[in-house]
Amino acid sequence: MSNNESPYKIYLNEDEMPKAWYNLRADMKNKPAPLLSPKTLKPITAEELSGVFCEELIKQELDDTTPSFEIPTEIRDFYKMFRPSPLVRAYCLEKKLGTPAKIYYKFEGNNTSGSHKLNSAVAQAYYAKKQGLKGVTTETGAGQWGTALSMACSYFDLECKVYMVKCSYEQKPFRREVMRTYGASVTPSPSMDTQIGREILKKFPGTSGSLGCAISEAVEVATNTEGYRYVLGSVLNQVLLHQTVIGLEAKTALDKYGEKADIIIGCAGGGSNLGGLISPFARDKIKGESDCRIIAVEPSSCPSLTRGKYAYDYCDTGMVCPLQKMYTLGSGYIPAASHAGGLRYHGMSSILSQLYDDGIMEAVSVKQTEVFKAAEEFARIEGILPAPESSHAIKVAIDEALKCKETGEEKTILFGLTGTGYFDMMSYEKFHDGIMTDYIPSDEEIQNSLDNLPKFDL
Amino acid sequence: MSNNESPYKIYLNEDEMPKAWYNLRADMKNKPAPLLSPKTLKPITAEELSGVFCEELIKQELDDTTPSFEIPTEIRDFYKMFRPSPLVRAYCLEKKLGTPAKIYYKFEGNNTSGSHKLNSAVAQAYYAKKQGLKGVTTETGAGQWGTALSMACSYFDLECKVYMVKCSYEQKPFRREVMRTYGASVTPSPSMDTQIGREILKKFPGTSGSLGCAISEAVEVATNTEGYRYVLGSVLNQVLLHQTVIGLEAKTALDKYGEKADIIIGCAGGGSNLGGLISPFARDKIKGESDCRIIAVEPSSCPSLTRGKYAYDYCDTGMVCPLQKMYTLGSGYIPAASHAGGLRYHGMSSILSQLYDDGIMEAVSVKQTEVFKAAEEFARIEGILPAPESSHAIKVAIDEALKCKETGEEKTILFGLTGTGYFDMMSYEKFHDGIMTDYIPSDEEIQNSLDNLPKFDL
Repeated sequence: MSNNESPYKIYLNEDEMPKAWYNLRADMKNKPAPLLSPKTLKPITAEELSGVFCEELIKQELDDTTPSFEIPTEIRDFYKMFRPSPLVRAYCLEKKLGTPAKIYYKFEGNNTSGSHKLNSAVAQAYYAKKQGLKGVTTETGAGQWGTALSMACSYFDLECKVYMVKCSYEQKPFRREVMRTYGASVTPSPSMDTQIGREILKKFPGTSGSLGCAISEAVEVATNTEGYRYVLGSVLNQVLLHQTVIGLEAKTALDKYGEKADIIIGCAGGGSNLGGLISPFARDKIKGESDCRIIAVEPSSCPSLTRGKYAYDYCDTGMVCPLQKMYTLGSGYIPAASHAGGLRYHGMSSILSQLYDDGIMEAVSVKQTEVFKAAEEFARIEGILPAPESSHAIKVAIDEALKCKETGEEKTILFGLTGTGYFDMMSYEKFHDGIMTDYIPSDEEIQNSLDNLPKFDL
Repeated sequence: MSNNESPYKIYLNEDEMPKAWYNLRADMKNKPAPLLSPKTLKPITAEELSGVFCEELIKQELDDTTPSFEIPTEIRDFYKMFRPSPLVRAYCLEKKLGTPAKIYYKFEGNNTSGSHKLNSAVAQAYYAKKQGLKGVTTETGAGQWGTALSMACSYFDLECKVYMVKCSYEQKPFRREVMRTYGASVTPSPSMDTQIGREILKKFPGTSGSLGCAISEAVEVATNTEGYRYVLGSVLNQVLLHQTVIGLEAKTALDKYGEKADIIIGCAGGGSNLGGLISPFARDKIKGESDCRIIAVEPSSCPSLTRGKYAYDYCDTGMVCPLQKMYTLGSGYIPAASHAGGLRYHGMSSILSQLYDDGIMEAVSVKQTEVFKAAEEFARIEGILPAPESSHAIKVAIDEALKCKETGEEKTILFGLTGTGYFDMMSYEKFHDGIMTDYIPSDEEIQNSLDNLPKFDL
């Protein structure tokens, strides 16, 4: 390794950390379509949202012209407990693959939530506290978002009620226990706490729950409880905004070593980590200052970008949330039970949907057995046990690095390693035991789900 | 925070990382007593050890005069994947406690093994590979050491057989699965693989195993398998040597900010993290250049330093390992079943035992409910979910910081945060549910165990 090359891990100094989040919408030529009220089917107003969301977050949600939002000192102080996150040069992986490509990954797993989710959780908890609220509600699937929010609420002394998809609640008792350590109350969803929960349980007594249903329950409780609002861990514009700390740090770190990313890769569920990672790079591409490739990786069992439709759809099962124009598989779509890990949301961030539609971003889908194979290879070579979600990006980063090996191109690849897999060992066990299967929905299955998209004239 | 104060986290640059381990024994006025052969009861020779341990590691084990051992490049490269570890200034904890004390902790949990154990695992795997061995065996209790060794063996392409104490094997299937991810074979101990295992199972058919028994099994397999040696994660001099990277990094980081530690605190099971953390500070104290306090914290249920006897004892149940002079509760001592987490070894590193006997180091014991209370408080304030082991140090660090609050003294406290508690949520659950109990062995119970110490004249 020559002296000019980057170290294994690039840590920015605390004074190099971003002081503002970057709002990509301000620079997009085609802005994402506005959220619609589920009641009026017209663009939703700040007032209509104010019963559900915190005021400051609504401003961030609806603002598509202000290019940056200052990060309050209190949030920056919290960030310092777990950020800057390292930008890692994957020297060992490069060597093992024998690729001329340079591989970097931005590792967001070095905090107790185990993922990037904490970046937005702390912001949302801070604004809730600032507004004088008593508490917040949310849903969680795999549990990373619920954990992150619990940590943030504990720090800012806010109550936190988490509705956890029932199958995860039962399969991941330890995730639940981490949230309890941070003082959150955790309820398996669907529950008897809410009208929507009771209705769903009556209709489907044996249901193991879904993200869309847990969202509806959390929203219902927030709107019916004095001093409460609802917060969400992905999909929304505000969440992508907070997550830009990932991309801003990564770009600063690359700049320090004179590196330019040729390919940027991230996994895509609701889109928050990917949106956060790519924002400053997408900006350069939109402005014609870069021709980098940006690749979203989604599971073949939940392929909203690659096989969904770009249309207005409901964000939740109960249809209480605003409608969003996005790539969607239909709000009734639930990935097959064999699907492990996260990335199971039926839709996609409206910002990313628009970037994809505009050709700024590509998308690919990958099978989960391939993903776990890449995950295990990565764990053995780079020492980090990745979350199944993050491993989607690893799989495609390895594929791209191997293409460089064929062509001899010395490309610089950057991917987002969103988190660790310590609470996903049940899935790893299935993989080790050779009983993990792949699921690719048939065209008919997807069409059936898309047939239920809301039908109306705007 | 003024500009002169340290950041939240101090990361050394890669070129500031230690290039040699520090051998404290070279500077000790009273050297630790030599290991004795279990056959001859005379100081054991390198030759006698060579069937069990790797050659290079035997040299390190027996050498009490060479002050430093160069860290081979291959090991330093591996270290770069997870080191330098951050020295964290606990600003939030200080504020919450309202103490004038400055609190720092060296955090070793940011790697997949979840603890400091990887520091020695990589060294031991490297020397095994260099000697041309095929594989290594070891035991693991809570599973951190087994995970660390699996990672290191995977990296250096060595086989790895782990004997895991049966109760942990059953209670922590996810730990086992992490080891499998790294290609290790994991066997619950006692097993039918070994003579000692079969004997113990015959005698105690329902036994849930013990560390001492798992050690005996791993040693038996290593000595009976072509191309294999045995490796150990704590207690031994070589392990403390490798762990000095913790203390060396911590001291360099403190020096950068002109800080001098007044009190250094670490948890003590076999002693490896504590020995590693304190070595460079103990050196200064021995040479009269510092009057810092050094405090070992052990569980009240396994109080080898505070209530044990300084005597020669066996390191394992099967009495196949060398005898070591150490503070011990007797090799038959097994902490009560209610004891959660690690720190359950009956003895203590001979280096630390000698330092304690010489008055260089103090020791206290703490009850586990107090430990979990401190752990939860720390998690909520500092964001890191600590391992139960590490939380022993947190408890005493908080106590010392509160004493400073009373006296108004602005002391600098440094403690070792050895790892994370993600795989210990079952114990946290007991704590949350209010069903965790404390255990303090009676004087009679300890005396009964000490009555079985080996009796011989040296």
